[in-house]
Amino acid sequence: MTMNLTYAVVGTGALGGYYGGKLANAGKDIHFLLNSDYEYVKEHGLKVDSVAGDFHLKSVNAYGQSKDMPQVDVVLVCLKTTQNHLLAELLPPLLKEDTIVLLVQNGIGLEAALEKQFPKLSVAGGLAFICSAKVGPGHINHQDYGQLNVGAFNFSDTERLEQLCADFNEAGVPCDFSKNLMLSRWQKLVWNAPFNGLTVVLNTTTDTIMQDEAARSLAKDIMHEVVAGAQAGGIPLETGFADKMMVLTERMKPYAPSMKLDYDFGRPLEVKAIYSQAIEAAAQHGFEMKKMQMLEQQLLFIDRQNMSK
Amino acid sequence: MTMNLTYAVVGTGALGGYYGGKLANAGKDIHFLLNSDYEYVKEHGLKVDSVAGDFHLKSVNAYGQSKDMPQVDVVLVCLKTTQNHLLAELLPPLLKEDTIVLLVQNGIGLEAALEKQFPKLSVAGGLAFICSAKVGPGHINHQDYGQLNVGAFNFSDTERLEQLCADFNEAGVPCDFSKNLMLSRWQKLVWNAPFNGLTVVLNTTTDTIMQDEAARSLAKDIMHEVVAGAQAGGIPLETGFADKMMVLTERMKPYAPSMKLDYDFGRPLEVKAIYSQAIEAAAQHGFEMKKMQMLEQQLLFIDRQNMSK
Repeated sequence: MTMNLTYAVVGTGALGGYYGGKLANAGKDIHFLLNSDYEYVKEHGLKVDSVAGDFHLKSVNAYGQSKDMPQVDVVLVCLKTTQNHLLAELLPPLLKEDTIVLLVQNGIGLEAALEKQFPKLSVAGGLAFICSAKVGPGHINHQDYGQLNVGAFNFSDTERLEQLCADFNEAGVPCDFSKNLMLSRWQKLVWNAPFNGLTVVLNTTTDTIMQDEAARSLAKDIMHEVVAGAQAGGIPLETGFADKMMVLTERMKPYAPSMKLDYDFGRPLEVKAIYSQAIEAAAQHGFEMKKMQMLEQQLLFIDRQNMSK
Repeated sequence: MTMNLTYAVVGTGALGGYYGGKLANAGKDIHFLLNSDYEYVKEHGLKVDSVAGDFHLKSVNAYGQSKDMPQVDVVLVCLKTTQNHLLAELLPPLLKEDTIVLLVQNGIGLEAALEKQFPKLSVAGGLAFICSAKVGPGHINHQDYGQLNVGAFNFSDTERLEQLCADFNEAGVPCDFSKNLMLSRWQKLVWNAPFNGLTVVLNTTTDTIMQDEAARSLAKDIMHEVVAGAQAGGIPLETGFADKMMVLTERMKPYAPSMKLDYDFGRPLEVKAIYSQAIEAAAQHGFEMKKMQMLEQQLLFIDRQNMSK
């Protein structure tokens, strides 16, 4: 059985512009919430330069405020986690009784925090494996990758979430349905934790870290610490996963992770979602992630220095 | 009983120029080994601008090669530890049977390494608590502090070392004789370990670290780790010493530690002496200094990047 799901995108930037744009380009019923780009996108639409093929949506359903938007089946939250405090105000106009809110974000503990604010909400999580950036108003540049993994957080009837996956695949976005969202989140953290933080602290890129014996060894140590933290919480993450990620990174092109881009562009760093909440989750199961703590402390300092420039 | 000790300074820079200059200014028999500044100092002497009073030694015993120097009672080694591989060649011409070689340097394991190269040598260590810099050829600027702590490493008749202390005090350099050199070295490391490394990694100064909750907390954690590492090796360092150092740092003027200056001026960082060898010493007693290891890995990366610029 297929359904015609309706979508909203909250946060039409590097991620929301690309993933929402792909769904719109495939003819899906989708509505974009914009902030600074609202006037521009309303007039000129959304432009996506992509390694998988450029496209220009001359007209999209653009909104400047969520209260002007229709209720939808699925909300794709593509904000930075540093903006999640806005969800309390942005989400309610979009919600029907059975709306799924999919957090396409990095980090640990995001779904639980949202469920706390909206106890009856169907919360899902999405992991984006993508290199993309907003390069101008309503203008997204998709440089590489693009895979999306999604999973349910607090509901068991996943038919609509699987439909969303089908919609994405139909739209040309490889999308996997994960039966264990927490496992997927921790798997992604295994890569994010060392490379987001270290590229900022060491002011460098992934390839330079991989080429230096000490930095590569530190990255690997942090990966293993994240795996151990996940295992402490009962997440079935295998120890060998860290080594697999190192091999994968070895083969990657030079890459500045999202936190490095945030740093370079003077935006707040997602320290809380990627570090503090992961450290807290492991600590709740008696495991102290010492290297993660040190990286967290360094990043909190750097973030404050960066934001006070 | 007082003796007229004869001195040589190996490495006439920020430390050697100041401490040696003070002894020369007090009329002691002292001989300076210079490298790039040799011709200049031979002609113009040594100039010391100091908070304790400026002085200009119009003529000093300057040498361009140690083989031209006389044998002396005490050799003050004031090189950066990154230059210690030169000692095998520089020291022999200066040594009598009972010469004391005093390593005025930061770090752990320096005396043991020298003893290994010169098994019969009387080795001593010196800890300099000073802000000084070489600002031009034969021109030292002494900005603050100046205290020197010295102790014997492998000999028990310390009469001449105590005489050296008396000579320094007479020359206006507060000098303490330490009965436990290893304790003194680890005490100094309690401050050096967090602030040398973190000012480089976080590209900042001591006061900015102290004003930031996360960075201050990390500095304190590293201090406590160093204290625990010392204790594991049987060094009688009290746990409260870390907190005392934090209070002292709180009261200090903004300060760029020697490693930060080395970094800023593109010189090699003393990672081995201040980090690697301390980590190894603690590990030999079964204690893993995890934060120190992470800082070491970050600094090795940064040092290599800095030297390849």
